[in-house]
Amino acid sequence: MISWLRQLSWPILDNLRSPVDVARCELANAFPGLSVSLNPDPSLGEGYRLDRSSSGWIVSGGPAGILYGAYALILKTLSGETVPDSFSSAPYYPLRMLDCWDNMSGDIERGYSGRSLFFEDGRFDYDPARMRELGRLLASCGLNVLCINNVNVHEPAQLLLEDYLPEAAALADIFRPFGIRLMFSVDFSRPLKHGLSTADPLDPAVRSWWKETAALVYHAIPDLAGFLVKADSEGRPGPFSYGRNHAEGANMLAEAVKPYGGYIVWRCFVYNCRQDWRDTKTDRPMAAWEHYASLDGQFSSNVILQVKYGPFDFQVREPVSPLLLGMKRTNLAMELQLAQEYTGHQIDLFTMIPMWRELFDDLPANRIMSVAAVSNLGRDENYTGHPLAAVNLYTYGLLAWDPSVDAEQAVSAWVRLAYGFTPDENRKLTELLLSSRRTYEKYTAPLGIGWMVNPHGHYGPSPDGYEFDLWGTYHKADRNAVGIDRTVSGTGYLSQYSPEFRAKFEDPATCPDLYLLFFHRLPYTFRMKDGRMLIQRIYDDHFEGYGETVAMSEVLRSLPFPDPDRAEIDRRMEMQLRNAKEWCDIINTFFHRLSGVPDAHGRTIYP
Amino acid sequence: MISWLRQLSWPILDNLRSPVDVARCELANAFPGLSVSLNPDPSLGEGYRLDRSSSGWIVSGGPAGILYGAYALILKTLSGETVPDSFSSAPYYPLRMLDCWDNMSGDIERGYSGRSLFFEDGRFDYDPARMRELGRLLASCGLNVLCINNVNVHEPAQLLLEDYLPEAAALADIFRPFGIRLMFSVDFSRPLKHGLSTADPLDPAVRSWWKETAALVYHAIPDLAGFLVKADSEGRPGPFSYGRNHAEGANMLAEAVKPYGGYIVWRCFVYNCRQDWRDTKTDRPMAAWEHYASLDGQFSSNVILQVKYGPFDFQVREPVSPLLLGMKRTNLAMELQLAQEYTGHQIDLFTMIPMWRELFDDLPANRIMSVAAVSNLGRDENYTGHPLAAVNLYTYGLLAWDPSVDAEQAVSAWVRLAYGFTPDENRKLTELLLSSRRTYEKYTAPLGIGWMVNPHGHYGPSPDGYEFDLWGTYHKADRNAVGIDRTVSGTGYLSQYSPEFRAKFEDPATCPDLYLLFFHRLPYTFRMKDGRMLIQRIYDDHFEGYGETVAMSEVLRSLPFPDPDRAEIDRRMEMQLRNAKEWCDIINTFFHRLSGVPDAHGRTIYP
Repeated sequence: MISWLRQLSWPILDNLRSPVDVARCELANAFPGLSVSLNPDPSLGEGYRLDRSSSGWIVSGGPAGILYGAYALILKTLSGETVPDSFSSAPYYPLRMLDCWDNMSGDIERGYSGRSLFFEDGRFDYDPARMRELGRLLASCGLNVLCINNVNVHEPAQLLLEDYLPEAAALADIFRPFGIRLMFSVDFSRPLKHGLSTADPLDPAVRSWWKETAALVYHAIPDLAGFLVKADSEGRPGPFSYGRNHAEGANMLAEAVKPYGGYIVWRCFVYNCRQDWRDTKTDRPMAAWEHYASLDGQFSSNVILQVKYGPFDFQVREPVSPLLLGMKRTNLAMELQLAQEYTGHQIDLFTMIPMWRELFDDLPANRIMSVAAVSNLGRDENYTGHPLAAVNLYTYGLLAWDPSVDAEQAVSAWVRLAYGFTPDENRKLTELLLSSRRTYEKYTAPLGIGWMVNPHGHYGPSPDGYEFDLWGTYHKADRNAVGIDRTVSGTGYLSQYSPEFRAKFEDPATCPDLYLLFFHRLPYTFRMKDGRMLIQRIYDDHFEGYGETVAMSEVLRSLPFPDPDRAEIDRRMEMQLRNAKEWCDIINTFFHRLSGVPDAHGRTIYP
Repeated sequence: MISWLRQLSWPILDNLRSPVDVARCELANAFPGLSVSLNPDPSLGEGYRLDRSSSGWIVSGGPAGILYGAYALILKTLSGETVPDSFSSAPYYPLRMLDCWDNMSGDIERGYSGRSLFFEDGRFDYDPARMRELGRLLASCGLNVLCINNVNVHEPAQLLLEDYLPEAAALADIFRPFGIRLMFSVDFSRPLKHGLSTADPLDPAVRSWWKETAALVYHAIPDLAGFLVKADSEGRPGPFSYGRNHAEGANMLAEAVKPYGGYIVWRCFVYNCRQDWRDTKTDRPMAAWEHYASLDGQFSSNVILQVKYGPFDFQVREPVSPLLLGMKRTNLAMELQLAQEYTGHQIDLFTMIPMWRELFDDLPANRIMSVAAVSNLGRDENYTGHPLAAVNLYTYGLLAWDPSVDAEQAVSAWVRLAYGFTPDENRKLTELLLSSRRTYEKYTAPLGIGWMVNPHGHYGPSPDGYEFDLWGTYHKADRNAVGIDRTVSGTGYLSQYSPEFRAKFEDPATCPDLYLLFFHRLPYTFRMKDGRMLIQRIYDDHFEGYGETVAMSEVLRSLPFPDPDRAEIDRRMEMQLRNAKEWCDIINTFFHRLSGVPDAHGRTIYP
């Protein structure tokens, strides 16, 4: 069971057919002595209103709204929050998506909590009771779209639209009472396997094939949210093979699903993944803008461009992607990654909402119309491997519902639900979780530079691990300086932003410290705003990051976690301590070998 | 078919029961019009004498000697060599071993020429005709011991001594007529799987178990050469678990095989493979001496310590191991590696005999009693992947027969047999092969430092790839200097050698250039004997290494290789060119970033 629903100890019956059924059942179990009446009000849609009645509560809303209202009432009550006599809420984004990178083999790409919940050995393989529990889990934090298969569509996941469609429809039936619509990642080149000689999006036969396929799919799953597409990215097929742009590609698919209210969610993760490290002209963060900016306004109304939050790839610190700021006439979704690929593999603590808060604070209201997050779920009993990693899924749900959510309040709510310690203990755990991202940031790659990680696996330090590789992720650290100049006089990356945004970062003297090496190439002797030398700041952050990890381990030890979380948390913290020590020492040694500058405080930097 | 036996186009019949049978058959096919009589002379043992008779030749020798004499006569004739009217020869080493690192899964550890010739899917799986061809191949170059399974004895290879023994005996029957004795790698901890609570070599029950096992094995294969053991090495079990030393471990096994004339070949690859990179006290090359030197004289007469040629692990350049020089009262075998693990994966050209020549020239006569080499063979049609990699197996055979063999003559003989071009073309190919090791050395890690290779796979450059890892293989390059001081004032490694040997290397001013960074830590500004700065020498070697590779590719293109070698050689050379370019540029950039010293000749070093 996932931690925040620990107190919902009753099973979910398999005969519930609608969100209202689920809401009624959950409320009856949660509040056995209380009268809660459900008041269908389709005008509220997914929103809800809670009104205290003489004998209990009235929950109003559209069908899904009633369910969200029910979970809000249950969770607020269980977490000890006072529910106002009248309280209403509605989701900010209509699509609140969770993207599973599950392969039908049962492996999960970048999965750190066991094997796939849906697949094994090339076919569907799931426990229906666990699927209902997953439905509860997602509905309880307000998510409403579940893409069940990897954006890299490996064989035989293409068959989700074909031979496996009846089984996919059966799974959709399980999730439907939880207000959740399925989505599938699709293979742009699929028509080639069905007798067509091309997958050119402007070819009439291709367009027909997709329309026919969409008709069959929507006949089986009328409320499918749509298709998710990774095209022309890291070896995936796409419109470029046919000399077409991505608007032409996406719009073709959009036309096919439009009659059914479906969306095409089109990922914008396009860059040259065969870059030569010797090439200093190409700057990978610029790639997405170069591919997409000129297409702004050309996408159909049911296409959503799904853009990773930063211009690289889910690093610990990146500026918000220029596409998210600049594509003003296009439907956009921001893509987050709950799976801790670069952020500690669900071994190290990394609570993400402080990072999301910064990103959303840099984003004008209404600039995006949706959010998506790569799932951190797997077949582990607690779903997320590390019990405390569940906070990221829960708070993602809160953010997707209300992007102005306060980070501290969100984490605190999760802590109270998941563990319900004494107020002092709850506060300690909340503070620890809120600080965990900065701690991880401190002991890993310095000041926004990213990528100093072990190649392929992406856990642990390797300062030059990607430096001479094909992926466009270089730091160019030498004996004098480190970083890439991405200002207008450098690669020009900053010119992809508005003048206001640019002004914040373009001068190293005023650029926020934590972004300094993302945007600038600087000598180790550069003076930070606080007077420290850049190299000293690097050392200081790393020693601090390790020290904070030690302190976190002591706080965790002092808290009364129940079993089996206790053992799992302790075991993973031992691993995190080793990892933080390796990062701290290796990064310091790497820069000390280059710079020759000793630590001002005489701490040990190994030769 | 392997290249040097190309002209032996007849099959080997399956009814030949002895080396004399094989010799007779091969001679009859090779010289259909000639009378060759066989003159058994057991006093010659594995040696042979060739005497010209009025109508042909008389081949004298013990049974295996007659076979070696027959192949000598055939190959010398086919290669255009003039055979003297009377010629005799005998092998220098009684055991001339080839160690296959084949797993019963069919994988080969560090195999670059296809899957196992013997195993697949956990069981024996071979083509008997190909086994006879392999017997011919090994006998034709004088090898007489074949260890068929990996020194890392993965399940179910333990069963070679047990359930699979009848099949192992059947394989031994196939090789026996070629003068080849099998050997098995064994698992020191095996008694634990047979009801014993210990594998302690001093425990009477353990000793009995091994004696009984040896009795069963030798009953099935009376001429088995013995057992090969990797103990207490990289996670393998061994005597250390029971507080026993390696003499106690090896002697216990030796006692078990002694009644049957068997040997225990005991590998000395013992070091701490969980070293902390921060630990500057431990110096991995010192480990073997520290473990074994004090045991000199304590090993049974049928134990052979098998020592890798250098103190690390098959690097492109290492000094000869101190154990090989210093264990004067112990049977020793030098271990070579034909499999090109660190030397280009049978993609890049790396002809080894010039390296072996240097090693053997540093070794006093009679210091070792045997040689072993890790096999480069696999199921590829040409056995070695790269057709030109076969030169290493052939010349290894010549070296094992006569350790004073001339490198140029050995390679030249192979070229004439394998391709038989015009004398000018043969000379060109011979020169190219002889120079290939220096070329590879030039473009890879500089001046004996080793290890700047992609971790795990060991192909291609990664200057810091092992720098912060557990394997004890550090270069400690910083902005001023590079290398480890292994003199008496440094880690003390050089004190493991005799004063004469030490004198050759201990002063950087006189230490041979190519070993400079193996033994010394030096500033980039160090003046080489020829006046160049160390850093300039590094740049020069790398530019030269790539330039020589380009030149080699042109020579290879000009030579009239037959199909399918032509295509295979061209394809691999394209890969070598890319690899040499990567090595050259990455190593130069790595040291340029650290040192800041520009190339004196203004060639491109990428930032």
